[in-house]
Amino acid sequence: MTYRGIRYNLAMQNDTIAAIATPQGVGGIGVIRVSGSDAFALVSPLFRRRANDQIPPSHQLTYGHIIDPQSQELLDEVLVAFMRAPHTYTREDVVEIQGHGGPLVLKRLLRAVLAQGARMANPGEFTLRAFLNGRLDLAQAESVMDLIESQTEVGRRLAVQQLQGQLSSQLQEARHTILGVVARIEASIDFPEDDVPTPTVAELVPIVSLAQRQIAQLLAGSEQGRLYRQGLRTAIIGRPNVGKSSLLNALLRTERAIVTSVAGTTRDTVEEVANLRGIPLHLIDTAGITPTDDPVEQIGIQRSRAAAESADVILLVFDGATPLTVQDRQIMDELQALGFGAREKSSSRSVVLVLNKADCQQRVETGELQEIWPDAPLVATSTLSGQGLADLEEAIVELALSGKLQSNENVLVTSARHQDALRRAAEHIDAAIASLQKNLPLDFVSIDLRAGYDVLGEVTGETASDDLLDKIFHEFCIGK
Amino acid sequence: MTYRGIRYNLAMQNDTIAAIATPQGVGGIGVIRVSGSDAFALVSPLFRRRANDQIPPSHQLTYGHIIDPQSQELLDEVLVAFMRAPHTYTREDVVEIQGHGGPLVLKRLLRAVLAQGARMANPGEFTLRAFLNGRLDLAQAESVMDLIESQTEVGRRLAVQQLQGQLSSQLQEARHTILGVVARIEASIDFPEDDVPTPTVAELVPIVSLAQRQIAQLLAGSEQGRLYRQGLRTAIIGRPNVGKSSLLNALLRTERAIVTSVAGTTRDTVEEVANLRGIPLHLIDTAGITPTDDPVEQIGIQRSRAAAESADVILLVFDGATPLTVQDRQIMDELQALGFGAREKSSSRSVVLVLNKADCQQRVETGELQEIWPDAPLVATSTLSGQGLADLEEAIVELALSGKLQSNENVLVTSARHQDALRRAAEHIDAAIASLQKNLPLDFVSIDLRAGYDVLGEVTGETASDDLLDKIFHEFCIGK
Repeated sequence: MTYRGIRYNLAMQNDTIAAIATPQGVGGIGVIRVSGSDAFALVSPLFRRRANDQIPPSHQLTYGHIIDPQSQELLDEVLVAFMRAPHTYTREDVVEIQGHGGPLVLKRLLRAVLAQGARMANPGEFTLRAFLNGRLDLAQAESVMDLIESQTEVGRRLAVQQLQGQLSSQLQEARHTILGVVARIEASIDFPEDDVPTPTVAELVPIVSLAQRQIAQLLAGSEQGRLYRQGLRTAIIGRPNVGKSSLLNALLRTERAIVTSVAGTTRDTVEEVANLRGIPLHLIDTAGITPTDDPVEQIGIQRSRAAAESADVILLVFDGATPLTVQDRQIMDELQALGFGAREKSSSRSVVLVLNKADCQQRVETGELQEIWPDAPLVATSTLSGQGLADLEEAIVELALSGKLQSNENVLVTSARHQDALRRAAEHIDAAIASLQKNLPLDFVSIDLRAGYDVLGEVTGETASDDLLDKIFHEFCIGK
Repeated sequence: MTYRGIRYNLAMQNDTIAAIATPQGVGGIGVIRVSGSDAFALVSPLFRRRANDQIPPSHQLTYGHIIDPQSQELLDEVLVAFMRAPHTYTREDVVEIQGHGGPLVLKRLLRAVLAQGARMANPGEFTLRAFLNGRLDLAQAESVMDLIESQTEVGRRLAVQQLQGQLSSQLQEARHTILGVVARIEASIDFPEDDVPTPTVAELVPIVSLAQRQIAQLLAGSEQGRLYRQGLRTAIIGRPNVGKSSLLNALLRTERAIVTSVAGTTRDTVEEVANLRGIPLHLIDTAGITPTDDPVEQIGIQRSRAAAESADVILLVFDGATPLTVQDRQIMDELQALGFGAREKSSSRSVVLVLNKADCQQRVETGELQEIWPDAPLVATSTLSGQGLADLEEAIVELALSGKLQSNENVLVTSARHQDALRRAAEHIDAAIASLQKNLPLDFVSIDLRAGYDVLGEVTGETASDDLLDKIFHEFCIGK
């Protein structure tokens, strides 16, 4: 397979890797994972157990102690499982050491394993090996991190689906359809004198159209799928004291950000994640984009501006109980300068006007705001009474999905990389159909179809380059 | 045994508990632990595996999937080990589910187990059960959290020693010595007409003195042991801009706290841990204790004051390059008011005078400082050149241990609770010896010896009350 570059090949054969596989921090149990042909030989001398010195039966959690082979010092009380290839995560020999879940004690155990000759694993290297050894395809491998990082139940479900190969099998169906056409065309070209008849346009168009529909169906849910996976970056912007932190807390329904009555308390941006009908809403509370001479506040303001620029949705918050102030207008100007004005309409970078303090008499100039953002939803909220918060959530969902909601039952493409590959594949298939309809020579058609086939193979990894693999697995955590 | 109160007895018999056992956060692997007589029956219906429906051999990590029994939805791809009592952590039936190490997916798995009828485990409840079922004594159980939370290699080593029972066996030796004497005295009292001779003072004193020495030896290292375990709370105090944050960073040799040139940047206290020859040095950078009208800064100042009050050591930092300012003097007054003056000398609450900016010409009034703190070490440092930092570390260690350093080879008592029990036991033994030497009736002696024996039993748990167990295990993390 083309992705088996020399680098991965070498790394795969001679190397035993090790890492702490559990999250960092304090917990009851921590796990060190070791994988490679020397895994058993490296760990065995460290592991002192009651029974004889033989390696326990495969996959058996065995009680004992890890000792430092030089000093004979006892490092931890552990359970160890020696797992014989190929029935392991990587399809290599794997040893798992379950120790006490403290950062220092796990580092000490890992150090002992590395001193035996194992190499510290790179991020995602266990899963990379699982992929290279054929246990998972690339889309499945990617779903491993999606699953670990899933922030909503919908996100978890989509990641498990992908891990189970449901996306892969739909992709392979489309690839299979395409390959069938390519094979017929190429056979007629390669063996014109044999009994292979040249297929007609009328024969081929329906089959290529089927592949086109198969790809289109996957693309249809991909915007929504990406939202479920990546979430929506939502910046809360407004001058000091209009209630930005209270709004953040109301959306989170917790008390995470410090709320005081002092303007300018939020020096840093605060980022929290709320669950909006399965979409992780990354709420960024900002210091407000007002000019200041205080250098510490200036840092906060630069971060606010960056937050606004990177946001998908901006909640522009005003004090509904007072007329617009000079600071309000400065922020409105700033936002328009950043491209969040009426002329920049797009479903994924949008403004919601929030008139807070709806429990007080309203005196803000609503008309002026609607003139600048005519299409922006306008929601009156009170973080005291809770009024308008459900409407605000509704408005955000509307903006983000704008009617593109699919049933959760479908396989949804959740990754930008997959979406991009599907789009490129769709272009090649479209080109193939156009060529067929123009009665161009069949080898033109075949080139486009093959290109589409290969592009789809990037998703499942049949045609992934070393660089792509590097990029994908470096976003993994260490130990997976 | 007296500690088996009704509450624990009931909890122990009928209840199957479950918790996430790995640290919170994102990692490759996460583990759910289930313990109790129904553990197998509760987990088995959730676990779909290739082979037949029989429960796999004990301790065998078995591949499969966790499904929701209602919806049949696939929740995660897992390895599961069913571990048959008594060869388990709790000595009950235990099931470990290894899933993907993400917070949401682990919560979902736990929810499925709880829906089957397991109860969410209390903090430390697995280890409590291990203790109640006799797998560990109380001192060993306590060392489990010490090990997990150990911050230095010395701390880890001491925790492992204690987990292995080395402290317990020295305690039991002392208890055994005492019990021997008690038995001889009581036999002579209970059966005066039999052949049991009344032991003489000359016979008893050497044996009781042996117990006295055994206890004294454990007490000797206990201050040092506590330092290794608890570390030293070290507050860095001084007016703005004398270089407190730079000093913190220099001691940590990292760049964790934000250092800017603006006075008052450190709004909150920052706490970091440095490793000072095996002692975890909890460094608390403070906002400075100067009066201010800014309510946000006032919060910081209140926290500084609290930090100073709870500190074992105060690094009182001055700008060596300028004469003392009004603010410096305010802080000096404040510290003296808090009891950190010359009249309050103790090895564990001490001031180190730090004259920073030693690279510049020195103009601070050293004499005035030494008048107020005549015994405080005075160290000139430069965080730019690194000058004086080693001296500062030396000064802190000196203050903390003041010559009480023991060899690391000894068993060290690391817990304040154990230290307290040993002190109380020593008092009882001293009283017993005094009674012997005064030729008081032997039942007086016996009462004191028995009291000493019982107090030592609090350490290993033979005589621990339910309240004590509650207190100890509630400081554990959940899942251990």
